[in-house]
Amino acid sequence: MRYTAHINIMPLKELLDPQGKAVSSSLHNLGLTQVQDVRIGKHITLTLDAANKDDANTLVQDACKKLLANQVMEAFDFTLVEG
Amino acid sequence: MRYTAHINIMPLKELLDPQGKAVSSSLHNLGLTQVQDVRIGKHITLTLDAANKDDANTLVQDACKKLLANQVMEAFDFTLVEG
Repeated sequence: MRYTAHINIMPLKELLDPQGKAVSSSLHNLGLTQVQDVRIGKHITLTLDAANKDDANTLVQDACKKLLANQVMEAFDFTLVEG
Repeated sequence: MRYTAHINIMPLKELLDPQGKAVSSSLHNLGLTQVQDVRIGKHITLTLDAANKDDANTLVQDACKKLLANQVMEAFDFTLVEG
């Protein structure tokens, strides 16, 4: 069965996010001063074949831990949908 | 009122995503051969102050169009939650 995983990988809350800080001050310079905080991470959509949702779940966890996320600095979460 | 916007910015479907292709072949090399397709974009969380949800919506649209997304190559979507 075909599944699509929507993965978000974000810098850990405890860490500074210099890219987010830069974007935040750029938004202020553009006049959008209501913006308080910006954090920037990755969004990955991954389509995969798996026998069932549990297998798909294991596979996505594996992909995140082995390659996609650097768990020293980043946290990931994902949702799985069929199709 | 305080709102949090969860923004996804992805390369347009019509365009090649070389970063995604590279990650896809790396996953295959790691033995995760069930992976079919990978596309990589940005995930941005933005906290902002706005009088109501409509204002917050307008502000996030503005931020995406003016700075966050390059609409020639990327499409964005977002969800707004209170708090």
